[in-house]
Amino acid sequence: MLVEIFDTTLRDGTQGEGVNLSVQDKLLIAKKLDEFGIDIIEGGWPGSNPKDEEFFKKAKELDLQHAKLCAFGSTARSVKDVESDYNLNTLINSETPIITIFGKTWKLHSQKGLGLTDAENEELIYKSVKYLKSHGRRVIFDAEHFFDGFKDDPEFALKMLEAAVKGGADTLVLCDTNGGALPEEVYEITKTVKEKFDVKIGIHTHNDSELAVANSLAAVRAGARHVQGTVNGLGERCGNANLCSIIPNLILKMNYETNQKSNLASLTSVSNYVYEIMNLHPNTRAAFTGKSAFAHKGGVHVSAVMKESRMYEHIEPELVGNKQRVLVSDLSGQSNVRYKAKEVGVDIGDNKELSKKIVNRIKSLEYNGYQFDGAEASFELLLRAETDEFSPFFKVLDSKVNVFYDEEGHSNAEAVLKIEVNGEIEHTASDGDGPVNALDKALRKALTRFYPEVADIKLVDYKVRVLDEKEGTAAKVRVMIESSDGKDAWGTVGVSTNIIEASFKALSDSINYKLFQYYKNKQFIEK
Amino acid sequence: MLVEIFDTTLRDGTQGEGVNLSVQDKLLIAKKLDEFGIDIIEGGWPGSNPKDEEFFKKAKELDLQHAKLCAFGSTARSVKDVESDYNLNTLINSETPIITIFGKTWKLHSQKGLGLTDAENEELIYKSVKYLKSHGRRVIFDAEHFFDGFKDDPEFALKMLEAAVKGGADTLVLCDTNGGALPEEVYEITKTVKEKFDVKIGIHTHNDSELAVANSLAAVRAGARHVQGTVNGLGERCGNANLCSIIPNLILKMNYETNQKSNLASLTSVSNYVYEIMNLHPNTRAAFTGKSAFAHKGGVHVSAVMKESRMYEHIEPELVGNKQRVLVSDLSGQSNVRYKAKEVGVDIGDNKELSKKIVNRIKSLEYNGYQFDGAEASFELLLRAETDEFSPFFKVLDSKVNVFYDEEGHSNAEAVLKIEVNGEIEHTASDGDGPVNALDKALRKALTRFYPEVADIKLVDYKVRVLDEKEGTAAKVRVMIESSDGKDAWGTVGVSTNIIEASFKALSDSINYKLFQYYKNKQFIEK
Repeated sequence: MLVEIFDTTLRDGTQGEGVNLSVQDKLLIAKKLDEFGIDIIEGGWPGSNPKDEEFFKKAKELDLQHAKLCAFGSTARSVKDVESDYNLNTLINSETPIITIFGKTWKLHSQKGLGLTDAENEELIYKSVKYLKSHGRRVIFDAEHFFDGFKDDPEFALKMLEAAVKGGADTLVLCDTNGGALPEEVYEITKTVKEKFDVKIGIHTHNDSELAVANSLAAVRAGARHVQGTVNGLGERCGNANLCSIIPNLILKMNYETNQKSNLASLTSVSNYVYEIMNLHPNTRAAFTGKSAFAHKGGVHVSAVMKESRMYEHIEPELVGNKQRVLVSDLSGQSNVRYKAKEVGVDIGDNKELSKKIVNRIKSLEYNGYQFDGAEASFELLLRAETDEFSPFFKVLDSKVNVFYDEEGHSNAEAVLKIEVNGEIEHTASDGDGPVNALDKALRKALTRFYPEVADIKLVDYKVRVLDEKEGTAAKVRVMIESSDGKDAWGTVGVSTNIIEASFKALSDSINYKLFQYYKNKQFIEK
Repeated sequence: MLVEIFDTTLRDGTQGEGVNLSVQDKLLIAKKLDEFGIDIIEGGWPGSNPKDEEFFKKAKELDLQHAKLCAFGSTARSVKDVESDYNLNTLINSETPIITIFGKTWKLHSQKGLGLTDAENEELIYKSVKYLKSHGRRVIFDAEHFFDGFKDDPEFALKMLEAAVKGGADTLVLCDTNGGALPEEVYEITKTVKEKFDVKIGIHTHNDSELAVANSLAAVRAGARHVQGTVNGLGERCGNANLCSIIPNLILKMNYETNQKSNLASLTSVSNYVYEIMNLHPNTRAAFTGKSAFAHKGGVHVSAVMKESRMYEHIEPELVGNKQRVLVSDLSGQSNVRYKAKEVGVDIGDNKELSKKIVNRIKSLEYNGYQFDGAEASFELLLRAETDEFSPFFKVLDSKVNVFYDEEGHSNAEAVLKIEVNGEIEHTASDGDGPVNALDKALRKALTRFYPEVADIKLVDYKVRVLDEKEGTAAKVRVMIESSDGKDAWGTVGVSTNIIEASFKALSDSINYKLFQYYKNKQFIEK
């Protein structure tokens, strides 16, 4: 049985706190959703802001392969003048094949919010849908607050759905707008609606009770065949139903079909892509797609998944494009370290003395604020230093960073650096956009004549996490850097109370790692 | 009907990635959970690490008012020698009134993980429970992987429960260890178990399918009267069932009783306290307790909640100790700004010109990376500057920060600052733990002779967020500072590509805000 997937990341998703998308961002996400196999992309509310109008103009050139675009809006402002309603006409002018409008199906809203009698609200819904239908579009009617409305007055709520169907609505979407419904209520009410109407029934839920996914699945079990949600569950307040959980649950657990099935292995990358474009920190603990979703820390779990992964994994992580990870921490012992070492290609063999020494070293660094998840390159250098395979490619003799304001009040940063490579000294300086950038530039400049390969390194991500935040500006900071040479990417870490020193440590590790890899491969080729 | 709440934040919670608690941290959290009315606190696995053993020793002096402590462990290692089993005896020696042990109820684990025949596993469970019971403790049997085990071989799974009951187990907890079960399965299977056994039935779920809360509630509907979970849903992989959602759902939506009912209004502060102790960034979108849980951004929503909050809020936020917020963003218009202005006590009256000017100024700052949620003091200064009520208390003529290594390789930071107050100049310098701390100290030093009140200001939180992270070390950073004078707390913000400049902006706002409040009140008193 096929379930239609309707994505509203670009509309309801942008109502989430901290979410802010440019038109270009929206176009990029739409393209990605189409590639993933999403059926309908709700792009925005063109009547409410110029950005969304622009989106629909530009979206026509997107050349979507599968997805259909949809514009969102409300019923007309006045029942007297539906055909010249600004909002409805903007929807029509967006030229999308599908239009969603929401109408009031909770008496409280209809009476108190809009000040309408029941008959007026009914007529408003009927006429608004009918007008849009007369332009030949597929019309989806979002029954706002349907579950609250039904619990309050089922007759009223159902009458409003009837008005939409009489107006020609193709799909009735039951909305738990406030996110307060329980799965058993959603199941029963959806079943009642399903039995009464012949059109396609859809579900739109919010996560205010941490039940949005369960409520969506309950509606599908009751007969809904259209599910609305957002990537990563972002949206107003606690967010919308998370499509990244609903889609794999439908396919892998409940045996439904969706058009993303053949692309399911790109689910994690779709999730990360949307976070990236939104410039939000990913929810590492997210089901299916989170970085921690298949990460094992407890000693019992680690030794079991090394035998057979389904012992502590509900699905194979590869099915959704994620992967198994083993964490190194004070809860874990030598078996975790051995697993990690093997992962980065370091053989510590059966040397118990060595692996114990490494575990202690890691625990002490972690105690001081280091973290090696996401800094596998620093971890590898640490292992290789302990096994005497690696020693740093350069030595820093002196470094100074000055930050000052020039006469026009612009802030400036300058770094002065003295390093030593094989007995030779290089003394150089650079300015930059801030102190860390100046230091980064000075370091590359100093190293280039010894190691021209450093020119290939690009910093692709730079993250700062303040530890012991209660210490205020005297707090320790952890800097995580991700670097790339166009082929590979690697992460490094540095910790200090001085943000510049922490950054410098992570930068140094990044360059040392690249040079280590480069010369190891070169040696290998030369042999 | 009373549901018993069992908290495993201190045990399963610490298996979450990035969670690391000292013994002292654990004691603080236990105290808080007791005050909140949690029935049972699972403190750790004393057999697995010395930290947890120490916790149970020290926890005896906690003087808990309501909660009972519980130690966690596994069945004995060998069926032959249960009474001298190290793990079981460590549990007994923890001297907790309650002991939880887990046993295998999925054949895969029993056979492949432990290499036992069905009869051996059965005997192991029976004997382990019996030995603990013989020491007069309440014994909770965690049926590990029960749902997977039941789906695989119901007869086997039920037989293992029988063994635990025969051994004297007081409570049977059905665990969805891998987090893969669906609510309808949990409901049916729990009902089957409930009908078969007379002891109390409990539920323990994980969030790998984003269904942990729904699964816990389904089990309660099927007759479970004991729910295990963690504060904020932290735990191994995607985490455990979130008690911060389960408790309000049980009380407010499903009419069950729990012993936290009279303290429900401290739910949000319990959630924040645990994040704080764990030094983790709170999940702002969390149901019930998240900072965004009752935050309205869409224009339609804002004007409706201003009329009647239940129009877009599923519960009153005060019931769980949270509060309604209105966000200022490019999705929002003048009504949001007016609401916010009123909130901070600034009257912009009906001046449309002014409120439009302010909206534009905010939009431009937000476009440049500013964010005013959590920086209400900066927002207030901005409003008061626009209404000509505020001008800065000092002017910075020159500032320099130097970071360098001394001869022993220790990093040093020094700030030199020249400021002007009412025509008088103060030129001073300070060192510090890193450049921002040096600048902070220099600024206070320079201002003290003009404004002795600055001595009261303490920085209580310092956060750095790298924006446009793809720009690497040349990225813009946003610094958010929280300050306190012992009575009030306030937040400020600064943005720049230069982290020192961004910090300095936030620091300056913090001091200006305090001085503004101080002199406004003083003026008021003098009048």
